[in-house]
Amino acid sequence: MLDEIEPLLRELCAVAARETMPRFRMRLDVDNKEDGSNGFDPVTEADREAERAIRRYLAEHCPDHGILGEEEAPLNPDAEYCWHIDPVDGTRAFICGLPSWGTLIGLAREGKAIAGVMHQPFTGEMFLADGETTWAIRGDERKALSTSGITELGDAKLMTTTPFLFADDIIDGYRNLEARVRLARYGFDCYAYAMVAAGHIDLVVESSLKSYDIAALIPVIEQAGGVVTTWTGENAISGGSIVAAATPSLHQAALELLDRN
Amino acid sequence: MLDEIEPLLRELCAVAARETMPRFRMRLDVDNKEDGSNGFDPVTEADREAERAIRRYLAEHCPDHGILGEEEAPLNPDAEYCWHIDPVDGTRAFICGLPSWGTLIGLAREGKAIAGVMHQPFTGEMFLADGETTWAIRGDERKALSTSGITELGDAKLMTTTPFLFADDIIDGYRNLEARVRLARYGFDCYAYAMVAAGHIDLVVESSLKSYDIAALIPVIEQAGGVVTTWTGENAISGGSIVAAATPSLHQAALELLDRN
Repeated sequence: MLDEIEPLLRELCAVAARETMPRFRMRLDVDNKEDGSNGFDPVTEADREAERAIRRYLAEHCPDHGILGEEEAPLNPDAEYCWHIDPVDGTRAFICGLPSWGTLIGLAREGKAIAGVMHQPFTGEMFLADGETTWAIRGDERKALSTSGITELGDAKLMTTTPFLFADDIIDGYRNLEARVRLARYGFDCYAYAMVAAGHIDLVVESSLKSYDIAALIPVIEQAGGVVTTWTGENAISGGSIVAAATPSLHQAALELLDRN
Repeated sequence: MLDEIEPLLRELCAVAARETMPRFRMRLDVDNKEDGSNGFDPVTEADREAERAIRRYLAEHCPDHGILGEEEAPLNPDAEYCWHIDPVDGTRAFICGLPSWGTLIGLAREGKAIAGVMHQPFTGEMFLADGETTWAIRGDERKALSTSGITELGDAKLMTTTPFLFADDIIDGYRNLEARVRLARYGFDCYAYAMVAAGHIDLVVESSLKSYDIAALIPVIEQAGGVVTTWTGENAISGGSIVAAATPSLHQAALELLDRN
């Protein structure tokens, strides 16, 4: 399966981008804004149509595989190979015109994420894990990625979507961690995980993720040298509260603070 | 002066990008990270060298003009025409590899911002106010911008860099406002203001800005139909606590909440 994974992931990204990009930064009149009477909502349409297109492509090329996505019911979820797809991760960024959303397409084998891609079609960047290596691909440029060598919290740059993401029973863990790092930044959705793979950010901490929000990003980070688990150190593929770190030491240091609740 | 402003602003952006882009996403070994012994810091170098290059260009082409920038002392600040420059607005984004920083170059005449540009060289986007119109320019694409028609807080999308930006004496005003809008997002620095001009975000609220953080963005928003002032409704060009809004009505509604402290 992994021999041909890069062209397959790239084709799936192209299929999705044909549905997402024409709807990104689409201006609506005030009369038909997304909560207006005609019900047209560009991001919902982008998400739904792109997922439909990806499912059509997979049904034709990988008919035995399972599919878990945001928009439709799970298909054959007990198959050996299972796809986890989120055509527009970062819907709020999308509706604000911000190029930090991404298309997430991940492949798991027997519950382990083995390959995946994050594609940001406006910037033209693709962060693609092929089973061994994570690549940053943009036009004709192509570079193997490696996470930063940061091992100490005091040197680490941390990102999360918003400090208000965390429920009352886990916010203390997040605050403990934020107080210890060099720098914390908010926003950027899946793009933040890509920057961990690329070595520019050292930690991403989030909660309430779904399987399809994280599955594609696990191999992107792991195959660049990083670590992704739940806050209790388990396989991140089921979602929930997630920590992604540049190095095993940094990951361990973060877990110790996050898990103190 | 404004007859030739677009080519001049574009040339200044190109001059700055030659200094910033090679240093963006520059990977350092752990041994020479920015607080390390050799003192090399890519974002500081980018900021300083780009400002130096811009000042050189202006000295040659507009020798009678004043210049206010982050890195060097004010030059001739009482001149009729005065430039306000910040080569890397969003230094934290820059060091996190995030393409939400920008180069800000604004021109004021007798204290009024009349033209300016925000350039994001990684995405290739330029948001340029030529004295009458704000243009979004990317490669060969060029589009006149207009802000959204949003007039009600309950319909508005709000951005600010971080909810922890605001000092104790003004945080209540910000919280009052955030509680009333449709959606609040964090991050994105000067890029958020460009999205107000482009009609995708409706409000940006920040505090503790310097003159060169906002001067270039005033015409970018005003010439797309928006309003930018301090929280007390004064000329934003001196910096401080700033609100940028898509429409006069929305601006007024925001001011009423922000100014209640």
